Amino acid sequence: MSGDQTSETRPLIGITMGDPLGIGPEVVVKALADDELRRRARYVVFGLHEALELAADQAEINPFWWREPFEHGPRVATGVLVADFDDVRTPRVNGVRGPDALAGNASFRFVDEGIRHLREGAIDALVTAPICKESWVLAKHHFRGHTDLLAHRFNTRRVTMAFFTPRLRVALASTHIPLFELRNHFTIGLVYQPIDLLSRALQEWYGIERPRIAVLGLNPHAGESGLLGDDEQRVIEPALAMAHNAGLRVFGPLAPDNAFTPETLERYDGFVAMYHDQGLIPVKMLSFHEAVNVTLGLERIRTSPDHGTAFDIAGKNVANAGSMRAAIARAIDYCRVDVSNISAAASTLTHEIDTDTGQSSTGP
Amino acid sequence: MSGDQTSETRPLIGITMGDPLGIGPEVVVKALADDELRRRARYVVFGLHEALELAADQAEINPFWWREPFEHGPRVATGVLVADFDDVRTPRVNGVRGPDALAGNASFRFVDEGIRHLREGAIDALVTAPICKESWVLAKHHFRGHTDLLAHRFNTRRVTMAFFTPRLRVALASTHIPLFELRNHFTIGLVYQPIDLLSRALQEWYGIERPRIAVLGLNPHAGESGLLGDDEQRVIEPALAMAHNAGLRVFGPLAPDNAFTPETLERYDGFVAMYHDQGLIPVKMLSFHEAVNVTLGLERIRTSPDHGTAFDIAGKNVANAGSMRAAIARAIDYCRVDVSNISAAASTLTHEIDTDTGQSSTGP
Repeated sequence: MSGDQTSETRPLIGITMGDPLGIGPEVVVKALADDELRRRARYVVFGLHEALELAADQAEINPFWWREPFEHGPRVATGVLVADFDDVRTPRVNGVRGPDALAGNASFRFVDEGIRHLREGAIDALVTAPICKESWVLAKHHFRGHTDLLAHRFNTRRVTMAFFTPRLRVALASTHIPLFELRNHFTIGLVYQPIDLLSRALQEWYGIERPRIAVLGLNPHAGESGLLGDDEQRVIEPALAMAHNAGLRVFGPLAPDNAFTPETLERYDGFVAMYHDQGLIPVKMLSFHEAVNVTLGLERIRTSPDHGTAFDIAGKNVANAGSMRAAIARAIDYCRVDVSNISAAASTLTHEIDTDTGQSSTGP
Repeated sequence: MSGDQTSETRPLIGITMGDPLGIGPEVVVKALADDELRRRARYVVFGLHEALELAADQAEINPFWWREPFEHGPRVATGVLVADFDDVRTPRVNGVRGPDALAGNASFRFVDEGIRHLREGAIDALVTAPICKESWVLAKHHFRGHTDLLAHRFNTRRVTMAFFTPRLRVALASTHIPLFELRNHFTIGLVYQPIDLLSRALQEWYGIERPRIAVLGLNPHAGESGLLGDDEQRVIEPALAMAHNAGLRVFGPLAPDNAFTPETLERYDGFVAMYHDQGLIPVKMLSFHEAVNVTLGLERIRTSPDHGTAFDIAGKNVANAGSMRAAIARAIDYCRVDVSNISAAASTLTHEIDTDTGQSSTGP
């Protein structure tokens, strides 16, 4: 896949519209209204023509796509095709917006078809607008979200959720589980996988030959030598040793509260966080609507914005499409390299392991 | 206690030197070298004259204090008195710096005497330089740190650790315990107390009449209506209801990853975090050496810098004294109000409770 400008070689990006009651339709329309993005790739949007048209109307954007029934298949010579799921029943969008079975069923279908096209190579990358997990449950689709469904459909457990911003790249060892439930899943493999996948992604997508990966501790002060928890010694340090033996350039476990200070940010190419908010708090503090959610381990490209359905502001034409725009831009960038080669990397690295403390490491 | 400039009415600030092997002596000397701070208050440093002299020498600061043996008592008419614990055995400071029983015993004595003077009203506020918890354990002092010892000596469990920076004020519901152990302590009272104490502190010390307190969730997306954990519904929401009934202006539970974005920061006067790193990651990202650790609930003033002993850089004259300087400055500020009146506050507030979601609330 190359980045040149003829329509034939430009990547074909699949975009799922997300929950019809959320801000998905709005951010998809606003993002694709960007001329630069439309020049760089071709698009198929899995969604509802009507919802997109309404969002465009509110944003005073002239529709720039053509519509075909989804059954016709996403053949796109140029520009933007909306593959319209006109057989899908959808809820009335005027009224209170929130979890809804019909909306959950609709967004699930968009994503499931998007993933199928991604798996089959009919699209070069998949970008997903936000869905509502509660709505999926109401619609009897029991997946914890996009990443969970991707893992199932790709028949792999080696999938990692990561967030990339211009200043910070973080992969998560765990994602959408209750914090205290993590104890039952906290294994060496759980910590090793994101180290491995993040290192490969930074090599392949960012051209960093020997990425410096910082691995966070789980406990306050990374356990302070066992005084504040033994999970570092029991789980994280063995994972670091494994990564080191595999030739990866790893550092840690870092005291979590010192890992994202301006000084420390500069020292590493990527970070591995142990749980959702440990990674997402810094990502969202630094993102300013530019953070992109990236799925690692698929050998296919999938990105999404870092925000949710935002029912409270949906339909009001006030949503910021920055993260969706960034998600599309990154997907295009990554199409320039063949991700299926990523697994061949990470072999010639020299060995390096280190701990990182700093002035604050044993502080409050 | 007033802030005017005659030596008689200027507050007397007690400062404990911290671990002799850490950066405590250095940041104490560097901070007190500030003319403005010396004009605003009188000081007694509980520590070792020799260690302070060495730090001053390295920093090329002319000693600005006089020394008396600790037994003579901290009577300070003006300036800075070093109450020298010359009977305390201390380790050799040239060599590898790290946890050490002699150092632990020394720093424990400084703090314990500092607290005694604070309790007895012999000093107006206590500022503590960092100690090493492992060294305390080696010296058979089994306290989890300053705050734990303060709670014991003041014979109260109503003590909360908080961090104040110019942009962010956070109180912690839990501090130095292993993350997964928090499950056994996660009660309504644990969450209520920091809401209550932070609200009072913001009223009294910052003059905010009706402080807006944002309370974070524990789980990803604050549990997403129970899909990702029930701790919000079981514990945090009842604590919010209690606070509401007590007349406090509380909001939440907020999705933790969205709580500290620039937009959200502006909306609240203070935040209550459920665990150490949930609060400390944002504090340290935003602090830039200005964050101050403040103990709430003592009816006495105690502050400290937000960093630890930093053995790796100790003795090298490279430590940043910004946080220690800020800790002293805040202690002086708070002396201007009579903290024993704080408990009388928080009664005439109107009732208000709210939830906060925002665009990202149901995101990744």
